[in-house]
Parts: sequence; structure tokens; C-alpha cells
Amino acid sequence: MRIALGLEFDGTPFHGWQSQADGGGVQDALEGALSAIADTSIAATAAGRTDAGVHATLQVAHFDTDANRPETAWVRGANSLLPSAMAVRWAVAVPSEFHARFSATGRHYTYLVLDRPVRPALLAMRVGWYHRPLALGPMREAAEALLGLHDFSAFRAAECQAKTPVKMLDRLDIAREADMIRFDVHADAFLQHMVRNIVGTLVYVGSGRHPPSWVAEVLESRDRSRAAPTFAAAGLYLTGIDYAPKWNLPSTHQPVIIPRQ
Amino acid sequence: MRIALGLEFDGTPFHGWQSQADGGGVQDALEGALSAIADTSIAATAAGRTDAGVHATLQVAHFDTDANRPETAWVRGANSLLPSAMAVRWAVAVPSEFHARFSATGRHYTYLVLDRPVRPALLAMRVGWYHRPLALGPMREAAEALLGLHDFSAFRAAECQAKTPVKMLDRLDIAREADMIRFDVHADAFLQHMVRNIVGTLVYVGSGRHPPSWVAEVLESRDRSRAAPTFAAAGLYLTGIDYAPKWNLPSTHQPVIIPRQ
Repeated sequence: MRIALGLEFDGTPFHGWQSQADGGGVQDALEGALSAIADTSIAATAAGRTDAGVHATLQVAHFDTDANRPETAWVRGANSLLPSAMAVRWAVAVPSEFHARFSATGRHYTYLVLDRPVRPALLAMRVGWYHRPLALGPMREAAEALLGLHDFSAFRAAECQAKTPVKMLDRLDIAREADMIRFDVHADAFLQHMVRNIVGTLVYVGSGRHPPSWVAEVLESRDRSRAAPTFAAAGLYLTGIDYAPKWNLPSTHQPVIIPRQ
Repeated sequence: MRIALGLEFDGTPFHGWQSQADGGGVQDALEGALSAIADTSIAATAAGRTDAGVHATLQVAHFDTDANRPETAWVRGANSLLPSAMAVRWAVAVPSEFHARFSATGRHYTYLVLDRPVRPALLAMRVGWYHRPLALGPMREAAEALLGLHDFSAFRAAECQAKTPVKMLDRLDIAREADMIRFDVHADAFLQHMVRNIVGTLVYVGSGRHPPSWVAEVLESRDRSRAAPTFAAAGLYLTGIDYAPKWNLPSTHQPVIIPRQ
């Protein structure tokens, strides 16, 4: 039997999604809890591998098991065993053709930047930080060059294992909410560090260090050394995965909400 | 010279405001940083003592020093020395008659309750949690009995050191925001655990365990054993202190802006 899960986690205490030798991956914590419930070893596959410190309001994973448990056992049972920074939102049986990664048709991320002189304290490890106010207009103008089907090699981590650097970025919205700037992005798939590299590059434009036209040049160069440094993992939230309606999954999207001041 | 400070902190790693033998108080961390900048021992006084795990978007403190430093030194210098969970928002010289606690005429708090079946993960240590949806109508009806000048002994911690249990509660607003309930309260001053005990009692009403009229009975009893258990510290935020305009302070209010799902 194949089970799909909706997961929420604070990425701070984990060394990223992927299983680690020291057991510090999100995957390790999840597989440990599921294996205890199934009373046999379980391997989980996620829609995408998040980096260390990256959060998820909604990540989707699946696993196979012969253990016959009610769906609530995979939720309540897991939540009683998982570390406090992680929770299973829902669990549902799916056809064996469903695959959390290969059935996914798109991914949503939100990046939050606090732009103020004083570093975050209450939101340390929850937001990126820039010490001066960022200008939205130039960042929005620059962002237009990134929309569409492009070779995103300039925004790709050296260790990225994706087969192709060509991705379809069809959303890159930038908005101010309270003393934060919010970047909402959507693509079919993302390269490693792609969102954080795009945000870092747009921050260079928002701060006035480069004109908006510079971002198109960086993209066209396909040269990682041309873009800005990778922005902090702490501000990045995986907020949802797209799947075809035929899978009948519970909600696979959970936006980040910033309350109004 | 007397200096007033605006402070922000995540209460999770601290054992409350008050200085501890093990150095784990918010006050200890602050005094350590200020003493290093002044190159002599500094004692700080806050507007109010927050409990372990309680957060502050804006706490006000003052200290006296003979060290002549630019105001920015007390901000940037302190922020380079303080733990990441705490930051100084502003520092300003004040007349020696100003006292962070005795000059304060009111305090604002916000309490956040996540009411959903699955415990918080991304917001663990940032919100209180109730496992079923809470009804706003009955809680709002019950809250009306608490507004005004009352003896709040029924909502007072046994170890509370306040001179009088009579406080003027002039705001107790309850609103739903996404899958959270937000309680905004304002009073001249609060007893120890007063907000958390009020929230716990209102949750008993919102869950249907008691009718709204029960809260007025609890208040009138002045008997702590009649009220509900103290709700978790994790959901409580000190959000501002009121002072007379004559003190010319920077903003002493900062509403809660916690990104949430």
C-alpha cells in the first residue's frame, strides 16, 4: 500500500530533507516515526529536497508499507513520535502510480526578507534580513526578465543534481507586508538554491547596487559567478506542491500568512 | 545618565525576564551586553517581568550609566553581543525621572491560539494550541464580563507579587486569523499569569465546556481554583507599553507580525 503525507516543519533544527549519517535530516525523523508505527523499516520520498534551515508549510511525501493501519495512525501516531519542529498534517492512501516527486507538476515557495536596521530577534531563523529598506519597483522590474522558460544556470548551486537547468518560472511576485518583503514564486521545478539565489540577486537591485537590467544580463550569462550570493535559508518556505486532481489528495498548498500590522 | 531601550525577544531560550542564578534570564543577557559596552556593571529595569517562554515584540527597559556612548552604540553594539533571540530596537537618553516600570501607564499583550487537530510544528513555541475549533461568539460574550475595573484574584498566580489584584482591563478583543485565534488585551497592569489564565478560561468557553456566564462567576469568586489551567507561555507576546508623550520616546508599541500558515 502506498500512503501520501502532507508535512509541516520548521527547518531550523534539521540538516535539510535528505537522510544524514547523523540522522539529522527531516527524512530521518519522518522515517523513524513511520517505521515505529509500521513496526518495520519505512523509506519516504518527498516532492523535493529542501536545504538545511528551509521551512515547509506544506511538503508532500509518500511511502510504501504492508502494515495495515488506519489513516489517523499515520497522523496522530506520527505526531506523537516526531520532534516538535515537525508534524504530519494529513495521510491518505494513494494508487501505487502516485509518486510524490514524479507526479508533481509544480512547486510553490515564499521567501521573506525583513528589511530594517535591526536584525531579527523574534523572527531569527524565520526570515532573511537586509539592513536597509529595499525598493520594490526596481526589484519588480528586474523580476520580469526571469519569468518564463529559461536556462537558470546562473542561479544554480554547483552541487545541484537536476538533469536540466531549464525551468519554467511562471510566478515571481514581490510585495511589502509590514516591515517585510515577500517573494512568492512558482515553477514546474526548481534548481538547488535557485530561489535563494534569485532573492539575493533581486536584493542587489532593491538596494540600488545594480540596475534592474543587470538581472537579465546575469540570467543570459548562465554564469553562477555573475549572480549575487545565496540568501539565507531561514527566509525560505516551501508552501505547496501541484498534483493532478485525479489523485484526490487533501490540500497540497498552505500559503504563508503575514498578519497585517 | 539614564537610557531607555526598546527590546524585542523570542522568549523560548530564556527563563523569563528576571535575572537567574544560571544567567538564563532576558535581563542577564541584556545586562551582560550593556556592561560590556559600558565597561562597567549595568543593571536594567523593565516595564514588566515576562515569564519563561513569553515573547516580546516590544519591551521597554532603562538603565543608568556614567559611560558616555553615542545612542547607536547601545543599539548596534548591544546587538552584536546579544544572543540571536534578542535585539535592541532603539536606545534614547531620558530624564532621570523616567522609570520603565513606574512611568508606564498601560501594557499591551497578544495571545495566539492555533485551533486545529494537528499540533503546531512551524509555530511550535510561538503559539498556544487547542486540538478542536473554538467558537468565537461565546468567548466574546464571556469576555465582556472581564472588561472594566475588577479584582482579578481568580486569574492570579499564587506567587504573584503585585500589591493589589484590582486592575483595569480595558481591551479584550478576540479575532480569527486563518487557523488561529488572536486575543488582544490592554490593562493598566497585569497580575502574574493573568493573560494566560484568562485565555485558558475563555478556551473552556470556546470549546463548549462551560457557558459564557461561567466566566463572570469565576471572576466574582476571586478563587484561582475556579478558573481553567494556565495556558501555554509560548502563545503570549508583550506588544507594547504606554508612556506619557512628555518622555518623547520612540515607538513603544509593536503589533505581532508572525508569519503563519
